[in-house]
Amino acid sequence: MSLIVQKFGGSSVRDAQRLRNVAGIIAETYLEGNDVIVVLSAQGDTTDDLIAKAQEINPRASKREMDMLLSTGEQISVALCAMALESMGLPCVSLTAWQVGIQSTAVHSDARIKKIDSERIRAELDQHRIVIVTGFQGVDRGGDVTTLGRGGSDTSAVALAAAFRADLCQIYTDVDGVYTTDPRIVPNARKLEEITYDEMLELASQGAQVLHNRSVELAKKFRVNLEVLSSLERKPGTKVKEVTNVEKTNIAGVAKDTSIARIALIGLEHNPGVAFQVFDLLGKHNINVDVIIQSIGREESKDITFTLHRKDLEEAEEVLNAHKAALRFDHIETDAGIGKVSIVGAGLVSNCGVAARMFEALYEAGINIQMINTSEIRVSVLLDEEDVNRAVKAVHDKFFDEA
Amino acid sequence: MSLIVQKFGGSSVRDAQRLRNVAGIIAETYLEGNDVIVVLSAQGDTTDDLIAKAQEINPRASKREMDMLLSTGEQISVALCAMALESMGLPCVSLTAWQVGIQSTAVHSDARIKKIDSERIRAELDQHRIVIVTGFQGVDRGGDVTTLGRGGSDTSAVALAAAFRADLCQIYTDVDGVYTTDPRIVPNARKLEEITYDEMLELASQGAQVLHNRSVELAKKFRVNLEVLSSLERKPGTKVKEVTNVEKTNIAGVAKDTSIARIALIGLEHNPGVAFQVFDLLGKHNINVDVIIQSIGREESKDITFTLHRKDLEEAEEVLNAHKAALRFDHIETDAGIGKVSIVGAGLVSNCGVAARMFEALYEAGINIQMINTSEIRVSVLLDEEDVNRAVKAVHDKFFDEA
Repeated sequence: MSLIVQKFGGSSVRDAQRLRNVAGIIAETYLEGNDVIVVLSAQGDTTDDLIAKAQEINPRASKREMDMLLSTGEQISVALCAMALESMGLPCVSLTAWQVGIQSTAVHSDARIKKIDSERIRAELDQHRIVIVTGFQGVDRGGDVTTLGRGGSDTSAVALAAAFRADLCQIYTDVDGVYTTDPRIVPNARKLEEITYDEMLELASQGAQVLHNRSVELAKKFRVNLEVLSSLERKPGTKVKEVTNVEKTNIAGVAKDTSIARIALIGLEHNPGVAFQVFDLLGKHNINVDVIIQSIGREESKDITFTLHRKDLEEAEEVLNAHKAALRFDHIETDAGIGKVSIVGAGLVSNCGVAARMFEALYEAGINIQMINTSEIRVSVLLDEEDVNRAVKAVHDKFFDEA
Repeated sequence: MSLIVQKFGGSSVRDAQRLRNVAGIIAETYLEGNDVIVVLSAQGDTTDDLIAKAQEINPRASKREMDMLLSTGEQISVALCAMALESMGLPCVSLTAWQVGIQSTAVHSDARIKKIDSERIRAELDQHRIVIVTGFQGVDRGGDVTTLGRGGSDTSAVALAAAFRADLCQIYTDVDGVYTTDPRIVPNARKLEEITYDEMLELASQGAQVLHNRSVELAKKFRVNLEVLSSLERKPGTKVKEVTNVEKTNIAGVAKDTSIARIALIGLEHNPGVAFQVFDLLGKHNINVDVIIQSIGREESKDITFTLHRKDLEEAEEVLNAHKAALRFDHIETDAGIGKVSIVGAGLVSNCGVAARMFEALYEAGINIQMINTSEIRVSVLLDEEDVNRAVKAVHDKFFDEA
């Protein structure tokens, strides 16, 4: 007998029909003799509807009251799912985060799970009940409801799997696994059977939307065996684990990100500490910077070029210009039309030829590389946004069709 | 400085506009220097919508999961109301029943409040915050969510008022007080300034829909000063208290009930215990009997006539016929078209002429009385359903227009 945690997202539980489908998956797992803990998100548009209600009353409502409001969404899901299982004659119980004791920090709308009490869930599992828990939420030390922010339900599922040492944590979603790249751009993208935590992390942070980074980080930390699979098609998904059996000469996938802007500070004085001043200033305004390149320009001045999220471009430009006198640069150049294409693979570090192959693919496609950035298991290139899809296809073909 | 509990029903909080109106009433009370505890029902149709969702999944869902589902309705209300108060710059906090510690019995869908923890609310009041609590719900000893059944939010409000020794418990609704009778039938019905707990109880159980009996009983037990008033019109409502200042020669009101049926068991043997057998049998089938009349008939046999709720008529007839041999009656006569008109007044017991005046009014209107039933502060007559409205008007005119 195994303990399996199954998480279903909002679209998987959006109406009665989908809920019955989900109940069917849970029932199958339970009737195979497993203990099952289910984690659910709010149904389909419920969260958006609740946000709209709040907006109508007070567009600047406190996060504490927003959490109080939004947490009802998952509570509705778990109660309805329990009813669906009851109608199949299966023993089950729905539990909110406070009933379980999912203790979190007090940061409303972006709380972190600190500890999960085991008593209540263990008692229910001992009674052979299927336990259905509200995802996305916790309760802080003062007894207030918190929510966990983006990807919160995935994080709830992984945290429960870790706390109860589950044998497997299945994340059911509306795609059937992790692909070598976006199938909408490259029709012959392949579903991966397995991927390592690190590869998944790089893919997620480079634009793959399947799993949120926080949940993968947590899974890695506690060695939780993850599986990403579809709630609509009954077939194996992608397993995320510590080490995969896949041959390491190839990459895991190609990711893209098209919401990038670039800023270049031209003609900075060549003083030590100038880079610190620039990025300290941006950090104080909560502006995250990604790739940074510094070069020595003509006449002993230097340029600093960096990328950031496109939504932050305007504010960053304003902040920098407001401090032009202190920072002593000549002028700013900006480009809002930047894209990024990355290859990710656990074997990258030991295969120095891999990056060269990527550049070769781009050269053959006639695509100009603006900047390059690498990590141990990733190579990213920045290029014109309009070249992104063509670049993804060229790189994917090079690694997966010529291989 | 006083502590005031204010309860608003579902229609008073049904949309953003109504919620802002409610926030205005709360703000006024708070800004006059009072501590305020607010109790809210679910918005307008929310509960019905949630029930419809449950029906679609499982028409026979467990009460435990129904409570889990329905309790989200009040949580949405309290969060939105807090947001409305926040937008007015007022300090406030919304709390669910489990956050307060409204401890109840474990009878799902019909729980009773056992105890209310004072710690959390007291701490919030000490911070000068308006406290907004979910009505209609509690939490049982096992940490499961319960709901309190019909009139539950009124009961929550009165229980909180009792626990915190509030100076006043205001029940805001969509009528502006308790009337001498139904204004839809008698246009010159008057709003009462004051009424006693006992009068309110008799009026409520005799068909007046303003307050649920449970909340009035609780208010009486703990001497909670109640006021029933409208959330839409800013004017005084009706005060419900132990003793009123109203002249006691008059009655408080005229109530009616038109959902009554009558059963007569004809030709019972004249044995002791036969009445016990009949009503014990009905009690075992959860059939409540109201007025009972027993008479000795011809030939040493006797008849027993009683009234019951119309919905129970069919089942009662079946049950009695199934035991015809044991009960030894000749035949059953039934009448599904019975109505009841009652006068209620704390002074009734000491004014023996009052009942006679009621009968006089009915005689003058040519209305036939079928049965009579009295309590210390009430006189009820049973009559043809079609005579009910005419009887209410005749009796009301006799007591309130001739007086």
